[in-house]
Amino acid sequence: MPPLRSTAALLLAPVLFLAAVRLPSPPPVAPPAAASAPREVTEQERVAARLLAEEMVSQGAWRKLAWLADRIGARLSGTPQAEQAVAWAIGEFRRDGLSRVRGEKVMVPRWERGEASIALVAPVSRSMAVLALGMSEATPPAGITAEVVEADSFDALHALGDKVRGRIVLFNKVTRPDPHGAGYGETSTLRHRGPSEAATQGAVAMLIRSLGTLNARLPHTGSLSYLEDVPRIPAAAITAEDADLIHRLQQAGETVTVHLRLGCRTHPDAESANVVAELRGRSRPDEIVLIGAHLDSWDVGTGATDDGAGVAVTMEALRLLKTLGLTPRRTIRAVLFMNEENGLRGGKTYAADHQEELQRHVAAIESDSGAGRPLGFFVNAGEGGAEVVRTLARPLLGLGLEDVRVGTDGGSDIAPLKAAGVPTIGLRQDMTHYFDWHHTEADTLDKVDPAELAKSAVAMAYVAWALAGSEPPLPRVPPVVAPTAH
Amino acid sequence: MPPLRSTAALLLAPVLFLAAVRLPSPPPVAPPAAASAPREVTEQERVAARLLAEEMVSQGAWRKLAWLADRIGARLSGTPQAEQAVAWAIGEFRRDGLSRVRGEKVMVPRWERGEASIALVAPVSRSMAVLALGMSEATPPAGITAEVVEADSFDALHALGDKVRGRIVLFNKVTRPDPHGAGYGETSTLRHRGPSEAATQGAVAMLIRSLGTLNARLPHTGSLSYLEDVPRIPAAAITAEDADLIHRLQQAGETVTVHLRLGCRTHPDAESANVVAELRGRSRPDEIVLIGAHLDSWDVGTGATDDGAGVAVTMEALRLLKTLGLTPRRTIRAVLFMNEENGLRGGKTYAADHQEELQRHVAAIESDSGAGRPLGFFVNAGEGGAEVVRTLARPLLGLGLEDVRVGTDGGSDIAPLKAAGVPTIGLRQDMTHYFDWHHTEADTLDKVDPAELAKSAVAMAYVAWALAGSEPPLPRVPPVVAPTAH
Repeated sequence: MPPLRSTAALLLAPVLFLAAVRLPSPPPVAPPAAASAPREVTEQERVAARLLAEEMVSQGAWRKLAWLADRIGARLSGTPQAEQAVAWAIGEFRRDGLSRVRGEKVMVPRWERGEASIALVAPVSRSMAVLALGMSEATPPAGITAEVVEADSFDALHALGDKVRGRIVLFNKVTRPDPHGAGYGETSTLRHRGPSEAATQGAVAMLIRSLGTLNARLPHTGSLSYLEDVPRIPAAAITAEDADLIHRLQQAGETVTVHLRLGCRTHPDAESANVVAELRGRSRPDEIVLIGAHLDSWDVGTGATDDGAGVAVTMEALRLLKTLGLTPRRTIRAVLFMNEENGLRGGKTYAADHQEELQRHVAAIESDSGAGRPLGFFVNAGEGGAEVVRTLARPLLGLGLEDVRVGTDGGSDIAPLKAAGVPTIGLRQDMTHYFDWHHTEADTLDKVDPAELAKSAVAMAYVAWALAGSEPPLPRVPPVVAPTAH
Repeated sequence: MPPLRSTAALLLAPVLFLAAVRLPSPPPVAPPAAASAPREVTEQERVAARLLAEEMVSQGAWRKLAWLADRIGARLSGTPQAEQAVAWAIGEFRRDGLSRVRGEKVMVPRWERGEASIALVAPVSRSMAVLALGMSEATPPAGITAEVVEADSFDALHALGDKVRGRIVLFNKVTRPDPHGAGYGETSTLRHRGPSEAATQGAVAMLIRSLGTLNARLPHTGSLSYLEDVPRIPAAAITAEDADLIHRLQQAGETVTVHLRLGCRTHPDAESANVVAELRGRSRPDEIVLIGAHLDSWDVGTGATDDGAGVAVTMEALRLLKTLGLTPRRTIRAVLFMNEENGLRGGKTYAADHQEELQRHVAAIESDSGAGRPLGFFVNAGEGGAEVVRTLARPLLGLGLEDVRVGTDGGSDIAPLKAAGVPTIGLRQDMTHYFDWHHTEADTLDKVDPAELAKSAVAMAYVAWALAGSEPPLPRVPPVVAPTAH
């Protein structure tokens, strides 16, 4: 486990600052300037400082994540490893002394990757790397050999018209790095909808340039969404390197042919669970601040950053508050959702099963943007909600969490709560390098900086605690007005 | 092929500057300061500028490299792809109008990687990634299952004493990035000598943390050297991620067991060739400036940076001089060496076969440090040699090639020439990211910046031309005095 020592000075700075201002100020050598006079430290700042000090000493988030990533590893919904993660999380919440710890039943898809291979067969013979997209159909056992046609958008695909028939479509668009992951939003639409778009024009399979921001010969898996009434063609991600090679060969006027074989299988749904634990509120226990992340991961790598980091941050937030005796006014409920990656069944099931309680959910916060430096929060609430969070989060400025903005992307698992008016908040980490490793074999513990993870855990704990005490609560999301029939 | 346009302005700057100072200066608006007065442009500077202008327009080095990497790809000694590379290089030299183009016979080892697999079997079951080290023996067909003991140096290995017996040794030392690749020198010794060191203490196999500077779940292959009279145990590289995981598990007090299977085979030596071409000298054709790189690569990736870039730079240097009619005073001879990676047979054979001619080799320059920004030259010559090269290379200052220093690491292929006194020079590129991709599946064309490659080709052409005209020639390497018998 990497030592926190190297970053201790950085982390301690705000703690020491707050500790210092509690002491009587020493007699000044020279008359102090007004701007440097000690100011009153608020109760809120002391809470933030205590959380940070505890997390630094305990390294609790890091310890939880190390176990989840190293000992359990990849945990795709429906696998024994996912059930191992459920059992571990329940045990861990209990060891941390939390209340009402339970698994809540969720039926999940059970998709198996199987064996896969791909190769360039013309104009050169070359091995390639591949990962099937999650939920893809298989190819016939002998595979598919076909010419590749390339497109970098749906418009470009449509412009190809009949040239797509009988061919393999390659969506070849580069995902650019961005602190907020903006590039991913654009290219993930190609991945989700691409197979059906290509099939509509007669394609026999779909490939996509990996949605990654680094060329490291790593295919990046991810989910697809087949449309009804369109042939379900097999779909897979290839590496940036191989996509570039195909592009160069096509630019040179060559006809490029590949052989693709995917052995995917979809089994009947399996029973799994969201894992839930609570820190009961002291005066309004029936009102709930939900904090969450997703417990499942893809079946490659170890899901350390997607979303092991969020799981550790969520679990540790409750433990920190419990350990420090910071009993919130409202109940803080942690939910570790199952099946975010390939079905969102956990998020949907939670919203459905807790329907009658959702009016008493005053906020939901998710951590699912990796393990980078925490930047702030995206807030999706009623008018003025972002301003409320900005004010509440002020004691976190010493940790650099100053970017509080209106944003609809609070987290996939909590998105279904919006329909009931629940304000949703995304704890946002710097995603500049998140997509370098996202959904690959390289999503492993070494990609996590323990000091940044600690800061995220503190931020989650603090904002949940503040929202649990906030009066009035956050303005709720206005109901979406359905278009009037006419 | 990526356009050069984006970097054209940068590259053109020195050309335009030199072009500008040839024009009559415009009437000054204000009296010019002495420092800004136009100065005489030397003939040497005009040559450098012409070379650069030609390379920018032709993109010749990039075109050659794109063909070698994309169309031929990996080309391990003894494979059909290596022979394809030999045939291509001969054809290309002839198309470029060069003299005395030929293959010179070299017998090379023929090693085959075969199938390989590795997995953690305790305390957790986990798939791992692996590449056998080049020239490794196979494991028994069923593989080897054994406990792992870890060491980060030979001293640490020796300290383990009898704990090594019957175990698999993991050399787990991080290679740090460095512009001159300094970290690699240290860790590559573990790779070369590690198998025999471990076997001496009774190890049954040897693993090494990949000699790479980025955690990208990429194993990095590379050669080993078995000692005589020591059991030849199988040896392989694992990824940084898996090495870190094993380290964390061992730190937690666990006994770590892996299963390793390598299907390597070594066949009888095969016939291959160094490829040689010349630009004949106009007044001293029997005196030779050798420029070179190695044509073979490992069997993974496409050898784009190791050493496709050097091959392209060497071939293009001759073509540039030929195209521009810059006939050198001495002969410039390009040698594309075979088998640098796993035997150095090309370099050794050249030195042996040209023994009687080596007194007339006035210098040898190799390009085998990747495709980064060219920084300058390492010079291994007689006293004052580096200073001579620094003076000769002055017209390249506009390209940023100012780091000319004494260095013994001129290039593996030309190292055998030192015994005959031949001054050797390494064209050095910035290696900060070279070992991110070195000897992996990710050593592909996208890792090469066309503008930097062009600068390297110009640097090679210019310095070869300057050395071919230099009077007196570079001071030769002093003979190594053998210890007197007593």
